[in-house]
Amino acid sequence: MREDYRHWQRIPTRWADNDVYGHVNNVVHYAFMDTLINTWLIGHAGLDVHRGAAIGLCVESRCEYRSPIAFPAAVDGGLRIGRLGRSSVRYEIGFYPEGRDDVVAQGHFVHVFVDRGTRTPVPIPDPLRSAMEGLVVG
Amino acid sequence: MREDYRHWQRIPTRWADNDVYGHVNNVVHYAFMDTLINTWLIGHAGLDVHRGAAIGLCVESRCEYRSPIAFPAAVDGGLRIGRLGRSSVRYEIGFYPEGRDDVVAQGHFVHVFVDRGTRTPVPIPDPLRSAMEGLVVG
Amino acid sequence: MREDYRHWQRIPTRWADNDVYGHVNNVVHYAFMDTLINTWLIGHAGLDVHRGAAIGLCVESRCEYRSPIAFPAAVDGGLRIGRLGRSSVRYEIGFYPEGRDDVVAQGHFVHVFVDRGTRTPVPIPDPLRSAMEGLVVG
Amino acid sequence: MREDYRHWQRIPTRWADNDVYGHVNNVVHYAFMDTLINTWLIGHAGLDVHRGAAIGLCVESRCEYRSPIAFPAAVDGGLRIGRLGRSSVRYEIGFYPEGRDDVVAQGHFVHVFVDRGTRTPVPIPDPLRSAMEGLVVG
Repeated sequence: MREDYRHWQRIPTRWADNDVYGHVNNVVHYAFMDTLINTWLIGHAGLDVHRGAAIGLCVESRCEYRSPIAFPAAVDGGLRIGRLGRSSVRYEIGFYPEGRDDVVAQGHFVHVFVDRGTRTPVPIPDPLRSAMEGLVVG
Repeated sequence: MREDYRHWQRIPTRWADNDVYGHVNNVVHYAFMDTLINTWLIGHAGLDVHRGAAIGLCVESRCEYRSPIAFPAAVDGGLRIGRLGRSSVRYEIGFYPEGRDDVVAQGHFVHVFVDRGTRTPVPIPDPLRSAMEGLVVG
Repeated sequence: MREDYRHWQRIPTRWADNDVYGHVNNVVHYAFMDTLINTWLIGHAGLDVHRGAAIGLCVESRCEYRSPIAFPAAVDGGLRIGRLGRSSVRYEIGFYPEGRDDVVAQGHFVHVFVDRGTRTPVPIPDPLRSAMEGLVVG
Repeated sequence: MREDYRHWQRIPTRWADNDVYGHVNNVVHYAFMDTLINTWLIGHAGLDVHRGAAIGLCVESRCEYRSPIAFPAAVDGGLRIGRLGRSSVRYEIGFYPEGRDDVVAQGHFVHVFVDRGTRTPVPIPDPLRSAMEGLVVG
């Protein structure tokens, strides 16, 4: 349900998102996840993708597709955090048609934060963690 | 100048639009053009991409890049028509940063309308042509 | 292990597959899966994406990322089938660097076959099923 | 004609390259150009995209589309250099179906080499320039 998510972003589709079967290709939902998560990290949690010492790398993602969407519609992407660990965070995402309550797809995405140079895990930096705590659910 | 365009759409960037050099990759500007044009055709000119008898195929496109843009910024895409022929239409596009007047990229894109089945040129259908006339400049 | 897969395809990367962190973006692995599966379906199992009565829609996908890959390297994609049902099939995929045995990513992808028009589930057509049986493991 | 090009790379299509009209979307041809050029720059001219002092930024691109291509076919991309300046280089590209001589699309792409940090134009570094000279045509 929409109420289960803590942050929302409306994401428009693009012409080429539709594949030969006339609907948004399954791959695109992951581009939406990446965009939703990183837009939030940059805008609400202070992530600096160009110079920050810690960067988030995806170690796992998953999506279940319930019903199709198609260009030129937009989707509302809902974001919450299901598990917030020392170095890793599991985001949970639901996509809904604009103004409707039936989920079209839902999934999760796990970031491990690593040192930009060595690419070894580091604790999630405090400003990021504080912001993330606001998205954690039950 | 922004005044030279007749229709506008704000287009958000996505995480993966940025390439390894930290800015939106040149290829993505064409995805923006395709999206701007087809969103307008569907929403304002009645194009039916799934069942319409005539479809628009791209026969030429071009873009000049003036300055970089980067995720998570959005761009404003301006659209006008520079030449409206019997079967073909030349769209001209300018991309501007949100709220600014310095163009970041500009280009054109030529559609030839063809029969969906035979893929041979057909006159641009009247409802589309009427709408297109509203975007024609000088 | 490579031996666990029944069909292989070498998949080159593209410039824009790399994201701002210098490696192939997580989203791209799903484009590789889609490509690997559909290339096999078309070339080895007789799928007709343009006119066939039954089409495969993705209802679930998942990927675990073990180590990065980067343009311009190619990856070897291995394919097998872990479950072959009446209407659905679960493909399992492993990606390996060219000439190496350490998996860089692995995942699964579930197709449900539906009637092209009504989009309701149908039995997997016989020629497809026969070909699929050759990829089934354990 | 194929003879007009100096370097070749076979580029496979991907499932999602096809758009709703059943052929490779016009945007994808630019992804092919970018891939062809950068694969050559990295493999044959010593470009270091991660640490090199000079990087190539696209300032203009253009493509003319003659006939459609569709997944799962591959295309042969031919590369030559039409103008080699102090800081800039104009690549010319032709795409041909595997084993055929009728061009499906052709275009050009202009790189300006800039300092990675300041992003101001610099002379094309000598090792790159030497390699580029081998692709220059009349």
